[in-house]
Amino acid sequence: MNSQGAGQAARVHAHLEAVLEPFGDTPVVAAMRYAVAGGKRIRARLVLEGARLHGIPETRAVWPAAAIEAMHAYSLVHDDLPCMDDDDLRRGQPTLHVKWDEATAVLAGDALQSLAFELAAHPEGAATDHARADLALSLARAAGGQGMVLGQALDIAAETASSALTLDEITRLQAGKTGALIEWAACAGPRMAEADTGPLAAYAGALGLAFQIQDDVIDVTGDADAAGKAVGKDAAAGKATFVSLLGLDAARARAHALVETACDALSPYGEDADSLRALARFVISRHS
Amino acid sequence: MNSQGAGQAARVHAHLEAVLEPFGDTPVVAAMRYAVAGGKRIRARLVLEGARLHGIPETRAVWPAAAIEAMHAYSLVHDDLPCMDDDDLRRGQPTLHVKWDEATAVLAGDALQSLAFELAAHPEGAATDHARADLALSLARAAGGQGMVLGQALDIAAETASSALTLDEITRLQAGKTGALIEWAACAGPRMAEADTGPLAAYAGALGLAFQIQDDVIDVTGDADAAGKAVGKDAAAGKATFVSLLGLDAARARAHALVETACDALSPYGEDADSLRALARFVISRHS
Repeated sequence: MNSQGAGQAARVHAHLEAVLEPFGDTPVVAAMRYAVAGGKRIRARLVLEGARLHGIPETRAVWPAAAIEAMHAYSLVHDDLPCMDDDDLRRGQPTLHVKWDEATAVLAGDALQSLAFELAAHPEGAATDHARADLALSLARAAGGQGMVLGQALDIAAETASSALTLDEITRLQAGKTGALIEWAACAGPRMAEADTGPLAAYAGALGLAFQIQDDVIDVTGDADAAGKAVGKDAAAGKATFVSLLGLDAARARAHALVETACDALSPYGEDADSLRALARFVISRHS
Repeated sequence: MNSQGAGQAARVHAHLEAVLEPFGDTPVVAAMRYAVAGGKRIRARLVLEGARLHGIPETRAVWPAAAIEAMHAYSLVHDDLPCMDDDDLRRGQPTLHVKWDEATAVLAGDALQSLAFELAAHPEGAATDHARADLALSLARAAGGQGMVLGQALDIAAETASSALTLDEITRLQAGKTGALIEWAACAGPRMAEADTGPLAAYAGALGLAFQIQDDVIDVTGDADAAGKAVGKDAAAGKATFVSLLGLDAARARAHALVETACDALSPYGEDADSLRALARFVISRHS
């Protein structure tokens, strides 16, 4: 992460801490703070950069940026639960149900989802009521049973299916599971400006898929220390991944091609979008 | 429930079925449909009646009415999980994690919360962007870590506390756990009309507390067949309830007094609010 990215990540984290301040100090709120700490803040940086391209000041854009981080954090907390992926380690730290307990993890995740909508619809975020309502509505669609949760449901269905997923099926699965929130993040800026979301949606579509392919590459090539989470799980479970379907080299080549597609989609913005191009290249260079 | 209430409940249910239609037929979506079926639709009827008092047509009000039912359904699904209340029976039917499994219950609850925000912010609901954004923002606050989830967190904390809750503490707990969504439901109408929420908020505050006291009465006096869920659990667990703190007769008297307070708060609406008065009296006459 470059220094600009680090500064953005720090400011979004400070904003999340600030909005959680009045929530008090129950274990559920402590767990919410723990869940939103750390991470690469890729989604938040997509919000801030997309907003900058549309002339939205960061003091406003930090609201949807924090919203998407709260939503992402909730999805990780629930994904890690024993009845889901049953992971003990996340970002090199004990997962939430390990550090607290399952009930606290369920509730903290639930409250983080609510928080995401509170931040997305907040009057200090988007300057117009139309944009506030649009941010909330589009976030609900991205997160719900036709977006992220659909991807998770397809993922669960795949585990018990008699045959492995095809490339088309896994692409559709990931478009929901990972892609929907990434697209929302990239499009939050034009939504705040009531502008065309087309170029950033195209960028995010390609980037989201590249992101997931790189996740599959890390699962095969990475070590748990660098990744901060268990690796090799998909291969051990016999799950179809982009790597198992394409092979490692072709998967990497596909991810690189997708990043170029993503960068090309930014052409209407010219050089102003160079930081989004750098962010896309970061996504496939990362090891965690 | 009178015939007017039954008609409203049926129309809200049909609306939920219709909005879930394009979600497809994964097990998670089947579980979502199961979770929103049945129930007394008290919250939905509060929305419709509050909206009627402010001249909002039911074709619009049915959106936030369905939203609050989706939110309520999610809270029940997660509340019933083994790591939470571990209930096998709800409305006389197997709970969702019993009929499907825990992962499906977690995901269906998560998607129902997202759905609630999609419905609350929907452009076919409130007629103005301001009201749509306000409905989403206020719903997020009612559901989250300073509303419903706060109440649930206090409830969990009480189970491991060294001393039983006081009447003040249990009142605060219930104001979050039950009261926040009831208040949101009652205030949705004036919010859609961008009118004063004061009278309906006062009505809902008293009604929500009466509602919870009656729940405690049913837990002591009811039978599982009539209630459609396990009863006697609180007493068996040694939990402080309004009945354990006040005694059965005084708890009933308190609930009746609160319903009168609720009805008095409706005086600005005159006789137009008689159906909300009837709904308040229904709440303390119910056996389930």
